[in-house]
Amino acid sequence: MAEVDGGFRTLDEQSLIDYISATPAVSSRLGNDLEGISVKEVGDGNLNFVYIVSNSSGGSVVIKQAIPYIRCIGESWPMTKERAYFEALTLREHGRLCTAHVPEVYNFDRNLSLIAMRYVEPPHIILRKGLIAGIEYPLLAEHMSEYMARTLFFTSLLFRSTTEHKREVANYCGNVELCRLTEQVVFSDPYKVSQYNRTSPYLDHDAEIVREDDILKLEVAGLKSMFCERSQALIHGDLHTGSVMVTTESTQVIDPEFAFYGPMGFDIGAFVGNLILAFFSQDGHTDGGKDRIAYKEWILKTIEDTWNLFHKKFICLWNENRDVGEAYLVDVYKKPELLLLVQGKYMKDLFHDSLGFGAAKMIRRIVGVAHVEDFES
Amino acid sequence: MAEVDGGFRTLDEQSLIDYISATPAVSSRLGNDLEGISVKEVGDGNLNFVYIVSNSSGGSVVIKQAIPYIRCIGESWPMTKERAYFEALTLREHGRLCTAHVPEVYNFDRNLSLIAMRYVEPPHIILRKGLIAGIEYPLLAEHMSEYMARTLFFTSLLFRSTTEHKREVANYCGNVELCRLTEQVVFSDPYKVSQYNRTSPYLDHDAEIVREDDILKLEVAGLKSMFCERSQALIHGDLHTGSVMVTTESTQVIDPEFAFYGPMGFDIGAFVGNLILAFFSQDGHTDGGKDRIAYKEWILKTIEDTWNLFHKKFICLWNENRDVGEAYLVDVYKKPELLLLVQGKYMKDLFHDSLGFGAAKMIRRIVGVAHVEDFES
Ligand SMILES: Nc1ncnc2c1ncn2[C@@H]1O[C@H](COP(=O)(O)OP(=O)(O)O)[C@@H](O)[C@H]1O
Ligand SMILES: Nc1ncnc2c1ncn2[C@@H]1O[C@H](COP(=O)(O)OP(=O)(O)O)[C@@H](O)[C@H]1O
Ligand SMILES: [Mg+2]
Ligand SMILES: [Mg+2]
Ligand SMILES: [Mg+2]
Ligand SMILES: [Mg+2]
Ligand SMILES: [Mg+2]
Repeated sequence: MAEVDGGFRTLDEQSLIDYISATPAVSSRLGNDLEGISVKEVGDGNLNFVYIVSNSSGGSVVIKQAIPYIRCIGESWPMTKERAYFEALTLREHGRLCTAHVPEVYNFDRNLSLIAMRYVEPPHIILRKGLIAGIEYPLLAEHMSEYMARTLFFTSLLFRSTTEHKREVANYCGNVELCRLTEQVVFSDPYKVSQYNRTSPYLDHDAEIVREDDILKLEVAGLKSMFCERSQALIHGDLHTGSVMVTTESTQVIDPEFAFYGPMGFDIGAFVGNLILAFFSQDGHTDGGKDRIAYKEWILKTIEDTWNLFHKKFICLWNENRDVGEAYLVDVYKKPELLLLVQGKYMKDLFHDSLGFGAAKMIRRIVGVAHVEDFES
Repeated sequence: MAEVDGGFRTLDEQSLIDYISATPAVSSRLGNDLEGISVKEVGDGNLNFVYIVSNSSGGSVVIKQAIPYIRCIGESWPMTKERAYFEALTLREHGRLCTAHVPEVYNFDRNLSLIAMRYVEPPHIILRKGLIAGIEYPLLAEHMSEYMARTLFFTSLLFRSTTEHKREVANYCGNVELCRLTEQVVFSDPYKVSQYNRTSPYLDHDAEIVREDDILKLEVAGLKSMFCERSQALIHGDLHTGSVMVTTESTQVIDPEFAFYGPMGFDIGAFVGNLILAFFSQDGHTDGGKDRIAYKEWILKTIEDTWNLFHKKFICLWNENRDVGEAYLVDVYKKPELLLLVQGKYMKDLFHDSLGFGAAKMIRRIVGVAHVEDFES
């Protein structure tokens, strides 16, 4: 218990066990059996602590705790631990909307900024690692398009009333610190000289080209404004390939602590942009003569399928729920050819936004603070 | 005191006087002299009660009270009286940013939804009436461009941090009922058959053309989404020519009860669109042989000057405050030609939005629920 702050304390393995035994909503997931309990810290992420807790009778639970700073940087970069509240809220909301692809939340403790959730068990691994290992996931596009279509559609004004929408927008405005982190590391730092950008002599020239590209910076200004101003849907906010756990049969989206009401294209772009990074990094992974040509084809096909399936599912949800949301009242847009026109425009704009945000996410992974393992392993 | 609701009661002239004498912040504006006090209800607006209170020694104050429904329709259309809170908040915020053109708030009573403010004294009249009477206001464009440039610039991310911005956005999400009224009467009802649209046999055909125009409805869908989703600045929200009081020397903007964080173009478009309506209505006002040709020229020039002066002032504020806001960090956009490029794009988009919203506001005044006196007097 390193720290005390209004009931908050950073848990260690022992205090975590004490917490679990005192918390029925969690201990019941272990069959109330704390015999032979094992706790393993697995947080390979940048911000938080993640523990896998299991007992000898096969019970398991994952405990994620946010601390009041950015873990990989240290106490010098404070960051509200309230991010755990928004993560838990979003896991629950997105889980309600897309149960198949979001781990169940068992318990949330706001004082401790602590989420107890389903252990996404092996053979699930982080998608980014699967992509580096060259593993094909035949259902990935199907699952991710389903996750994105459902979470984005049902939290947008295509499904919500403006009353519900504004209430939710107001609440998620509270996650401003996490939004600010994105604003800085995605939309600002890569375009200026910043102490936080990680450089390498091999990239200095590229970084400079980015900093000097006026047309690029003009477009990025527009994307940043959209990120800050446009509350289109409850987005995950950090949907790179490190926030997805996979097997060949299952896809689970974790870590929505950056969630807020923002532009849908930010999620789609994050996912697709990170697949494109994975594509380009494949040449660095060719294992002993065995090239990755077929694998690269699979990645390309997955990108294409992701958008096409997303498009199909999203429009399908729209058609099924025409009389629900308040953006396009059925009385105004009932004529089939007008609805087609409106949907066409909506999807074209969304595709455009997604490509823009995807590019911004790729750039920041190359010349910004947080690089990706794809290019570094 | 017709109504009681958690301390709320609709005031009449006598209870208004009782309220004033019990409220030093208001009675002091009358020199604490309630001798020969006179109360005149002047609310010609659609929603609220407005009283001019004056005494025999020349003191005066305006009292505006919101009631829990839409006045001109009645209790069958309930509308939160909390709109008075947002009106008072916005009068104060816009008044701080543009003191010369916003009446001072003396007191706000949230329980009574009651604002005490400066009496914008004669010869001030409502601008719409001045336009119908054919009066030229040589400073109108100068003043309105000043008001819009300052209120919109200083509440946008060109000046604010995203922390301040999200806090304010969240608060103004509470004004959702008023936003919903706009959504309905501006962006939805005119494009469908609605019991609320006021019709005339002379307009039936035009109303039908509007309802059948797919390209128009496609554009209006985009505008409505922008209105619901984009928190660009603290906008007035109802900036037609009935919300402006004028003399040839002075311009005062009243009635911001629809204020929220929305697209800037909605304010600019409302003002300019209503000037365009005034322009087209002039032919109906030609008084006894004296035509309105010169006056129509003046209106056109005022429209042009409003945008051009707004553009100049807005860019000037931007240049003076380059290191303040968080949308365009000075370190990223310091190169003069890049800043020019970014500003050019920003203003071009804003002009485009303003024209779109202006058109929507004009259409709704012709085929929607609330018509304008310009065409009806
Ligand atoms: N529910 C879970 N089941 C299994 N492993 C998990 C779970 N949640 C997180 N992890 C593991 O912990 C790592 C870090 O979790 P993450 O939520 O991404 O934390 P951070 O917010 O710090 O990035 C993940 O990469 C994954 O390996
Ligand atoms: N501060 C004021 N000074 C003088 N007259 C005012 C003032 N505020 C409102 N009025 C008068 O009352 C009318 C209605 O006020 P307004 O604020 O527009 O109410 P509503 O919200 O009902 O439209 C205005 O058109 C104007 O004639
Ligand atoms: Mg993570
Ligand atoms: Mg995270
Ligand atoms: Mg009014
Ligand atoms: Mg009003
Ligand atoms: Mg457009």
